[in-house]
Amino acid sequence: MTQKKYLLRIDSPDEKGLVYKITKILFDNNLNIISNGEYVDNELKHFFMRTEIEGDFDVTTLQNEINNVLPEKAKLKLSCTSKKKVVILATKEHHCLGDLLIKNAYNDMNIDILAVIGNYDTLEALVQKFDIPYHHISHENLTREQHETAILQKINEYKPEYIVLAKYMRILTPKFVEQFPEKIINIHHSFLPAFIGANPYRQAYTRGVKLIGATAHFVNNDLDDGPIIIQEIIPVDHTYDANSMRKAGREIEKVALSKALKLVFEEKVFVKNNKTIIL
Amino acid sequence: MTQKKYLLRIDSPDEKGLVYKITKILFDNNLNIISNGEYVDNELKHFFMRTEIEGDFDVTTLQNEINNVLPEKAKLKLSCTSKKKVVILATKEHHCLGDLLIKNAYNDMNIDILAVIGNYDTLEALVQKFDIPYHHISHENLTREQHETAILQKINEYKPEYIVLAKYMRILTPKFVEQFPEKIINIHHSFLPAFIGANPYRQAYTRGVKLIGATAHFVNNDLDDGPIIIQEIIPVDHTYDANSMRKAGREIEKVALSKALKLVFEEKVFVKNNKTIIL
Amino acid sequence: MTQKKYLLRIDSPDEKGLVYKITKILFDNNLNIISNGEYVDNELKHFFMRTEIEGDFDVTTLQNEINNVLPEKAKLKLSCTSKKKVVILATKEHHCLGDLLIKNAYNDMNIDILAVIGNYDTLEALVQKFDIPYHHISHENLTREQHETAILQKINEYKPEYIVLAKYMRILTPKFVEQFPEKIINIHHSFLPAFIGANPYRQAYTRGVKLIGATAHFVNNDLDDGPIIIQEIIPVDHTYDANSMRKAGREIEKVALSKALKLVFEEKVFVKNNKTIIL
Amino acid sequence: MTQKKYLLRIDSPDEKGLVYKITKILFDNNLNIISNGEYVDNELKHFFMRTEIEGDFDVTTLQNEINNVLPEKAKLKLSCTSKKKVVILATKEHHCLGDLLIKNAYNDMNIDILAVIGNYDTLEALVQKFDIPYHHISHENLTREQHETAILQKINEYKPEYIVLAKYMRILTPKFVEQFPEKIINIHHSFLPAFIGANPYRQAYTRGVKLIGATAHFVNNDLDDGPIIIQEIIPVDHTYDANSMRKAGREIEKVALSKALKLVFEEKVFVKNNKTIIL
Repeated sequence: MTQKKYLLRIDSPDEKGLVYKITKILFDNNLNIISNGEYVDNELKHFFMRTEIEGDFDVTTLQNEINNVLPEKAKLKLSCTSKKKVVILATKEHHCLGDLLIKNAYNDMNIDILAVIGNYDTLEALVQKFDIPYHHISHENLTREQHETAILQKINEYKPEYIVLAKYMRILTPKFVEQFPEKIINIHHSFLPAFIGANPYRQAYTRGVKLIGATAHFVNNDLDDGPIIIQEIIPVDHTYDANSMRKAGREIEKVALSKALKLVFEEKVFVKNNKTIIL
Repeated sequence: MTQKKYLLRIDSPDEKGLVYKITKILFDNNLNIISNGEYVDNELKHFFMRTEIEGDFDVTTLQNEINNVLPEKAKLKLSCTSKKKVVILATKEHHCLGDLLIKNAYNDMNIDILAVIGNYDTLEALVQKFDIPYHHISHENLTREQHETAILQKINEYKPEYIVLAKYMRILTPKFVEQFPEKIINIHHSFLPAFIGANPYRQAYTRGVKLIGATAHFVNNDLDDGPIIIQEIIPVDHTYDANSMRKAGREIEKVALSKALKLVFEEKVFVKNNKTIIL
Repeated sequence: MTQKKYLLRIDSPDEKGLVYKITKILFDNNLNIISNGEYVDNELKHFFMRTEIEGDFDVTTLQNEINNVLPEKAKLKLSCTSKKKVVILATKEHHCLGDLLIKNAYNDMNIDILAVIGNYDTLEALVQKFDIPYHHISHENLTREQHETAILQKINEYKPEYIVLAKYMRILTPKFVEQFPEKIINIHHSFLPAFIGANPYRQAYTRGVKLIGATAHFVNNDLDDGPIIIQEIIPVDHTYDANSMRKAGREIEKVALSKALKLVFEEKVFVKNNKTIIL
Repeated sequence: MTQKKYLLRIDSPDEKGLVYKITKILFDNNLNIISNGEYVDNELKHFFMRTEIEGDFDVTTLQNEINNVLPEKAKLKLSCTSKKKVVILATKEHHCLGDLLIKNAYNDMNIDILAVIGNYDTLEALVQKFDIPYHHISHENLTREQHETAILQKINEYKPEYIVLAKYMRILTPKFVEQFPEKIINIHHSFLPAFIGANPYRQAYTRGVKLIGATAHFVNNDLDDGPIIIQEIIPVDHTYDANSMRKAGREIEKVALSKALKLVFEEKVFVKNNKTIIL
């Protein structure tokens, strides 16, 4: 038993007295609460809690103590905060990837990039500058299933905790996605749910919008329909065509993905009912 | 002929030398250019110009001179800037209407509200505080056509230059709309084209978006599909339900409508290809 | 003892176990926690808590129970949420005042405007439209002390909980201000601490800024130096002069003041060390 | 004489007929105007014009023709748009530099980074990844003048068109700065003119602001007082300390510097009276 900093996350059906019961255990164990966030979704009767604690304790014992006072279906996680092991999928665009590579190199966020997989070799040189393995797995001459199998096999070699789609421009099948529930994070180049699907900047230009957006979200079975983590926008005007929207949009794609990953990797994000709760 | 301040608006197929030919006429007439904005849509080969001029001149003569150098299909408008005569349609919500009534009372924008028409009597007291006629034209027991005919008749008594839908919650038929091309301005309570149709805040809540929006646009035949003038957004998070989104959204609906009207009434807005060009 | 909705606010030196001890009492009294926010300032070792509770209880008994577990210097408030009684001070500008009058009339926020005091009669007609007393207390031919004494006497007739300076353009003396600690809210027409003092839009224009701001803050002895509640900004460019900045700025002054009052009147704002904590 | 794309920039005392006289020459030379922006500062009676033209012409002849119709003190520049040659000065922080290195590598903006000079060796490894020379010129054991002389000598070897201070944390003397009028661009980590000088995030934290900013500006003799090009802000709240403000601020420092450089390097920025006009 040593003095440690831990993160306690609880995701549970709501019940009267939960905060009291949980904080009693923390108090009885003589732990410090460094920060504490709770939220009750009164519509769903669901309770979320994220607490940073500090003190001397045995993890398993504390987990058991807390579990004993939680409702049966509650999920509890008690862990050290640590860098998240990540594999990135990308295609040809460098802006999100480049930003993450630099942040990875300088410990700007809780990320540990294990490898980058690309369906083109375009980004190989960039990734190698940062001494990170790049795997070029072309989709050419492969069925979607064959391609995904190859990617999956490569991912599994690395055993990442998260998969980040940094402008990976191919659709992932439900079969692939369901192996990583709430573990795949994508950046979509529009203000979802506007402009779902292909070429959102062309759609935005055609519609004549005055703001363009970017959405970072978890990926679930339905394309572009997963829980939204963060959205960013910038103003545009009549002088923008689809191409200049695309260029301008890159800056907020980069920002949205980076902010979303920071939140997820600090374990601030809960998912319920296809929405995110961020504590 | 007296010293006057005029606004020159040109909307024309593009042609080499247009700026030269137009500014030559202004120079030869010894006019001052107070401000000048031009834009060429290179995809559509279309030219837009908005110029504030000052000097002594005969309006018809100048118009003719300029028209002589413009392409055949060009539209030219040369006019004094003046308050725009407006009839407002509203339903039950007071926030956009109240903002416009105060701005009207204090000359905060180029607006002259002639009357307000409501399909409920909810807003009558508010409008009367500002000594503006309120006409309660209920839709109850009327077909849509009968109701629109009654509204149209009342509008026509006032001969407004613009019709403003300040949270008017009924759909207008194409037959009504086509009588006022580019003259009806609506505030839609979402970030169009997301959440078209009914109850956008409920839709936004269900989708779990992290930003909500408001869109001020011209109304054409397709509901919610007219040229967008301005869009505003505010951040929301998991603590918002549909109702608190609705309340928060009111503030940006007010702002978006007000900004859009300011632009339109200062004749800064051109429409082409279902988009706005704002000079 | 009846089923009631109450707000519990605690502002206290921090101590291990506070959350546990407080929530234990709530649990033992069989109360529901509707929402709960806590914050510990680890630098100041200070604890803030804002909890909405529901249930059957005796207020004094519950207060005593909680006070018994709090540190000596703790401040506790247990009260029904209710509309805050307010006297507004204004000068000549109508935009903030008009917005508040409409919100007051339609219950858009927790406000009950008892009266408006102006040092000009400019705004009298507007206020009277809303059947609220307007007191014109001119500063002409009075010393600052005489003027403040007259205002103070009028304010005291109304016994307001808060005083709102809705573009009141005269400096209040420390002697006046210290009678209403954390009870006077001002809107300053700049992004504080930039452009403290007179004519901030002229200062902003001269400096050539690209964003202008508005700051809602509590008033303490030092002018423009009180705890900031909220700040809003809008972009400007080289086409703005001081006057057009002033006009554009009004919209965000209105928004900033309104948002700040909403937060304060819902008792979400704590003040410590000249800063606000908003739960 | 070949078909070329050129940029025409005019910065001149205003005079009636300038637009006409200039566009007449363009028309008479049979040139296409691809885009055109003009602005008259009516307070300063000054005229700015930025026009992209296309066609067959002799540069010197066209320059002379236009100069002949301009007022005596006018400045005219007619040039191909091209990548700007840049030397970057940095200290220890990598975020702005990293962003620029990636944009340089991928032609994301009109930049050609010739070299990076740092007063520490911290950033050497990063710069070398991108095959750009890094010069470590330590300030230790040198007077300010000696250090600047060494830097100046190194800069002059490269003959850059612009010097970018990408979080260069040392003050430059007037003697240094005056050699590069309107050629040095700095990113200041606050919303100028708030928090001028050292440690702006600490100042911002102490003041309890609710928004923090970043300002990209030209450097002139007075520190932090040069013409502002762009400003960015992000919201903060009571949970931020000076350090988390610093971290959050980096993202907008990066964005502000990058946007400002894009504008300057596309020659969209004019400077007059310590302000920028952006066309």
